[in-house]
Amino acid sequence: MTRAARMPPAARAILDGDRRALARVISQVENRDPKVAAISRALYPKTGGTPIIGITGPLGVGKSSLINLIVARLRELDRSVGVVAVDPSSPFSGGSVLGDRIRFERRADDAGVFFRSMASRGEAGGVAAATREVARLMDAAGFDVVLVETVGSGQVDIAIRDIASTSVVVLVPHLGDEVQTLKAGLFEIADVFCVNKADLPGADLARKDLSELVGLGAGRSGWTPLVVSTSTTQPSGVEALWTAVETHERFLDSSGQRGIEERRRLSAEIVELVRERVGRELSVRLDRDPDLRKVVDDVVSRKIDPREAAERLERGSAFRR
Amino acid sequence: MTRAARMPPAARAILDGDRRALARVISQVENRDPKVAAISRALYPKTGGTPIIGITGPLGVGKSSLINLIVARLRELDRSVGVVAVDPSSPFSGGSVLGDRIRFERRADDAGVFFRSMASRGEAGGVAAATREVARLMDAAGFDVVLVETVGSGQVDIAIRDIASTSVVVLVPHLGDEVQTLKAGLFEIADVFCVNKADLPGADLARKDLSELVGLGAGRSGWTPLVVSTSTTQPSGVEALWTAVETHERFLDSSGQRGIEERRRLSAEIVELVRERVGRELSVRLDRDPDLRKVVDDVVSRKIDPREAAERLERGSAFRR
Repeated sequence: MTRAARMPPAARAILDGDRRALARVISQVENRDPKVAAISRALYPKTGGTPIIGITGPLGVGKSSLINLIVARLRELDRSVGVVAVDPSSPFSGGSVLGDRIRFERRADDAGVFFRSMASRGEAGGVAAATREVARLMDAAGFDVVLVETVGSGQVDIAIRDIASTSVVVLVPHLGDEVQTLKAGLFEIADVFCVNKADLPGADLARKDLSELVGLGAGRSGWTPLVVSTSTTQPSGVEALWTAVETHERFLDSSGQRGIEERRRLSAEIVELVRERVGRELSVRLDRDPDLRKVVDDVVSRKIDPREAAERLERGSAFRR
Repeated sequence: MTRAARMPPAARAILDGDRRALARVISQVENRDPKVAAISRALYPKTGGTPIIGITGPLGVGKSSLINLIVARLRELDRSVGVVAVDPSSPFSGGSVLGDRIRFERRADDAGVFFRSMASRGEAGGVAAATREVARLMDAAGFDVVLVETVGSGQVDIAIRDIASTSVVVLVPHLGDEVQTLKAGLFEIADVFCVNKADLPGADLARKDLSELVGLGAGRSGWTPLVVSTSTTQPSGVEALWTAVETHERFLDSSGQRGIEERRRLSAEIVELVRERVGRELSVRLDRDPDLRKVVDDVVSRKIDPREAAERLERGSAFRR
């Protein structure tokens, strides 16, 4: 039986450009439907060729407006684009941070654009995995570019490095003033800095400060992050922003970093998947397997501490047989 | 060699009530100093007897003021108390959310109180593990009660269930009005609901709504969450709040749930530690071991997908030998 013969109909439909099928499978990813694994596996050989561009930054810096303008720019360039926005939910709000605020211009008539907002729930690792899965589905669906927006949730924002080939960090001028305190975190994420709301006072200074700071460090793997200014109210700078993104994408190819970075990202994904499987299996066995229950008993009775139990479980035959 | 003979001096000092030693080891936990493992292991047999009370809820509901009043109440009852407040940091702010705002009344003269604010950085799982470690150090240090405050970070807030024996969820009246949308999340966490700012309009209604909602569900494991109202500006309700906490602690003993819950928490901790060890070891081996590099090669070249790689690595002999 060939791979093609085994391809699930939903995967076939996505490859054929069926947007409803794409939307349905994305919903399945959100709902952690186990059927996704087979679809994803069938599509995987068709992925990897699409630039995945992360757009990240604090709440309120205008990421969504910026993305609307980037999409418009990409359409001018006749490139199709899939957008996934990760909308964190909180156990306190019980819903998404952004609610049902309409975040993206509807472009219902334009088959070259596909927007999807994803409510995220549960642990950060799960959210990052689901986001990567959706970006990969859009890659398989044949879009020329995939944009991934993450919304001000520390853990998920950091995870963008494990999903995107180019990461844009969006800031606003008053944050630029505090740039001295931004420290390592952002520099680990950003391939491009975008100072949005460039019409506000302080924007030039913010950009200058950032450029200086960026110049100080060697940048990771031979790349010095680019700094651009944009405004979404009096639209400006979006062409320059996109040029910066493309410059980084070309750098990935010319430097050989694309392969290195992709390998790093895939390795991290594999490690996370193994961690998950091990955790799931061990949780069940700690409850059911008498030998393993005994180890927990010893921790409960304070004979050994949890670290020692973990060492035994990992090293000992109990866990390996 | 007996256990006592092997006890690290820092562990000995903590058991002897040395508060500076306690503060130093907590700093080591924050800095992920590997020396903590031996100290923690030596102290573990001395832990488990202290109620760990989680105080959680959104930013701005007055948790810190409430904790100051709870501490005052505990001192009236002549009980010593350790407090750890988890202060989430963001890659965007580059520092803690609360900054150096003085959050707790200083009680420098009172040896029966120990406050510690912990800046948290990195992934949610790491923050939860560090918080548990600090609560356990305070337990070993002999405090009668340990309070753990988490500050409005979804993932860490949920983790409180894996740390505390009793969890208090603090809300304010206007959140109470939206209680219909709070849904399952909070009910999974709360043993006690506290409607703070009871002097604000709507407080009675919020409390009534919550009480009704709480009455609908069976509660987990036979416990129906208690609902109390407090005010920190015109201090009131704090005695009732503490009584509610003690009622839950007594329920844990009388129902046999304490042992069941402790076992669940320790099992979850062991699973997390194994996951971490497996992830760390695998990351290194994926890079260095030729057989494992081959698996990553196959993922990079799209021969197999990351899930299949993870299955092979977990099941195959390559990972088990």
